[in-house]
Amino acid sequence: MSAAHGGIAVGLQPPYYAVVFTSRRTEGDNGYADASDAMVALAATQPGFLGIESARGADGVGITVSYWDSEEAIANWRRNAEHAATREHGRSLWYAHYEVRVAKVERAYAGPPGTRA
Amino acid sequence: MSAAHGGIAVGLQPPYYAVVFTSRRTEGDNGYADASDAMVALAATQPGFLGIESARGADGVGITVSYWDSEEAIANWRRNAEHAATREHGRSLWYAHYEVRVAKVERAYAGPPGTRA
Repeated sequence: MSAAHGGIAVGLQPPYYAVVFTSRRTEGDNGYADASDAMVALAATQPGFLGIESARGADGVGITVSYWDSEEAIANWRRNAEHAATREHGRSLWYAHYEVRVAKVERAYAGPPGTRA
Repeated sequence: MSAAHGGIAVGLQPPYYAVVFTSRRTEGDNGYADASDAMVALAATQPGFLGIESARGADGVGITVSYWDSEEAIANWRRNAEHAATREHGRSLWYAHYEVRVAKVERAYAGPPGTRA
């Protein structure tokens, strides 16, 4: 796992993979916050996990990007039994809509010039 | 440009490209909100622009993902004079740190099952 300073995954060297999960929540928590924390902690123990970033704005749109060293690592995480059960339990309960995009990061850079995260 | 319902870019057909911009802001607005709105409006007029999603949480970490139909479209947007000037002006003023990742979206799916954004 890479460094993650202040919620930003830094120091990753392309190529690697990103899973971009964009969602709009339903009303109410319905156990979401605890389940989300548990899934982030579980993801971080998975082989090939590189980092995760997450933000949700006041308009209810949230974006979570997890980074992985291979497509195989993503597939394994998708098959993880606890993750699959939580996903199945929560997807209609917690989300009005979501989009999942699996992407290969081809290049990356950081800034502002002269800073380190 | 694709549909964008409630801040989520929907209906895009892979392959396409994503630019994931993760940042932590500096203190104060310093003209950021107006410039950000102007850049989103300008991006939406560019050839090859497919959509944009953005969220910033209470912890100050923000994620903006813009979608494009080709690497050439991303390169053209990067060279856009007004965009370049705003970037140059703002990157040290507005951001404590940022990471930019250019990624090829290889597959995508939406949910929950039975919903439309």
